[in-house]
Amino acid sequence: MFRPEIKVCDCTIRDGGLMNSSNFSLETVRNVYKAACASGIDYVELGYRNSKDMFDPKEFGPWRFCDEDMLKQVITGVDNHKGTKIAVMQDAHKAVAEDVLSREDSVIDMIRIATYVKDVDKAIHLANSAQAKGYETTINIMSVSNVNERELDEALQQIENETKVQAVYIVDSFGAMYSEDIDYMVKKFRSILKTKELGIHCHNQQQLGYANTIEAIIRDVNYVDSTLYGFGRAAGNCPTELIVGFLKNPKYNIRPLLEVIGTDIMPIRETMHWGYSIPYMIAGMLNLHPQDAMNMMKLEQDGHEDKFKYAQFYDKMVEEDF
Amino acid sequence: MFRPEIKVCDCTIRDGGLMNSSNFSLETVRNVYKAACASGIDYVELGYRNSKDMFDPKEFGPWRFCDEDMLKQVITGVDNHKGTKIAVMQDAHKAVAEDVLSREDSVIDMIRIATYVKDVDKAIHLANSAQAKGYETTINIMSVSNVNERELDEALQQIENETKVQAVYIVDSFGAMYSEDIDYMVKKFRSILKTKELGIHCHNQQQLGYANTIEAIIRDVNYVDSTLYGFGRAAGNCPTELIVGFLKNPKYNIRPLLEVIGTDIMPIRETMHWGYSIPYMIAGMLNLHPQDAMNMMKLEQDGHEDKFKYAQFYDKMVEEDF
Repeated sequence: MFRPEIKVCDCTIRDGGLMNSSNFSLETVRNVYKAACASGIDYVELGYRNSKDMFDPKEFGPWRFCDEDMLKQVITGVDNHKGTKIAVMQDAHKAVAEDVLSREDSVIDMIRIATYVKDVDKAIHLANSAQAKGYETTINIMSVSNVNERELDEALQQIENETKVQAVYIVDSFGAMYSEDIDYMVKKFRSILKTKELGIHCHNQQQLGYANTIEAIIRDVNYVDSTLYGFGRAAGNCPTELIVGFLKNPKYNIRPLLEVIGTDIMPIRETMHWGYSIPYMIAGMLNLHPQDAMNMMKLEQDGHEDKFKYAQFYDKMVEEDF
Repeated sequence: MFRPEIKVCDCTIRDGGLMNSSNFSLETVRNVYKAACASGIDYVELGYRNSKDMFDPKEFGPWRFCDEDMLKQVITGVDNHKGTKIAVMQDAHKAVAEDVLSREDSVIDMIRIATYVKDVDKAIHLANSAQAKGYETTINIMSVSNVNERELDEALQQIENETKVQAVYIVDSFGAMYSEDIDYMVKKFRSILKTKELGIHCHNQQQLGYANTIEAIIRDVNYVDSTLYGFGRAAGNCPTELIVGFLKNPKYNIRPLLEVIGTDIMPIRETMHWGYSIPYMIAGMLNLHPQDAMNMMKLEQDGHEDKFKYAQFYDKMVEEDF
């Protein structure tokens, strides 16, 4: 038994790009795209279409901008008979509408706008602009575990009234939510967003990224984000291979995902860390941005003598929390 | 809001002992015991009381047997004003009742019997013997994801009728269960075990160890197993620090747990691997014992050229599965 409405969006290259300034080789991006197509993943997000005025192309790799000629090099010659669609993300406060071409001049199918609640007007502007150019669109509300609820309600009502986005995502940026929080947010989003699908994007600070994604699916959320081997900042994301293993839709095939994890993701993994660790767990538990925890993990990478002083790190975080 | 009936049993030394043949230093076991006491953990399982006829003491460390003089060295001088109790485990098919002293001659509070369904008669014998000697007792049913249900029902009925154990554990040895499986098993166990508490012991092959433990708690399971930093075979266990972070009982204090993870568990972690990885995920998804996956992980440890050939490993496992 499966729910055909469920759409999986693999955002390995986009969200993983926060780990390496979007500096993937063309070969890796092609291999991920190929695997997504072969496994029947619904959407594959190949990076950001952010502004070159806000990110220096000398410092950031091509997948921070996803120029059309780069995307064409990714997809040319790849068998896509299952119809995997291409998404890119725009950050509401770091992207401009003018960077998005007309739909017919682009290989992109969907533009996803990531936004904090406070930037919702910018997000709506970008989404409506992309929609008018012919794209599918979503708005992804970041850090929902840490918002003013009145402002969130207002933002959702604006999105409902003023856009035609097909889905609005609940993004647990801090990996702080428990299943009951997911239930609560899904209910809230559903009650206001009567004409939109809902999406879920979870992080794994408390080892709940996958479980919370399943919880959202059970609560009728149909758009599901994930990354290969959970590749992503801090404790990483809900893993695509687990979601595909869970969903029973026969169109999905897990094998190409396992293969590309072995050929392209694990070699990256040997050079950088993501996944569960005590500093991230502390940040998630305290509903904090993982930046301090990432600094703490840097000590481990550097072999610093304080690398395992978790109790002291906890003390510092609790102090900052109040 | 918290449920005072919930009892956490940290089984780091016992279950982690499957990783290192129970060869922990006395100092580490003392540090774990101290941390459990200081954090208010209800039970701390310090190893097995298994038979020296079945495990060679030359090959296995002292925590496979937990001789009383060893246990005394662990606890002497440690502040235990919160009343943390000591548990040890007996394997139904690898332990004998005679190895358990009278309660008054022992520092142990609880004897936990681990059993496969097929060995339930042995388990009942060991449990009743320990109970008669004055101990608290539990029976922990291993590999419940992979049992004949008629035989499981019969075993549960026997335990209900023939023992006075205070709790019966659902053990997801293969890390194969989803939340709906947890619900199903809790309901089954509850329907037969009308006079016993229920317990949960989860593994993390599919990153659901912690989430499934929460699910069981929501379904009124009161005995909860976990290990520090999830230390345990294959993908490891539900982490104690996450459970304590989740439970709201003010008697718990997470800080000593974070400290001992830093001082004693992370140094072990630098010498051996546990936690999520693709081979374990495949085993969990296919509801298989993790042994083949552990062999595959050995290739990674050894830097073997096939270490990341996950798709081929998957093919082999699927073949073996049918």
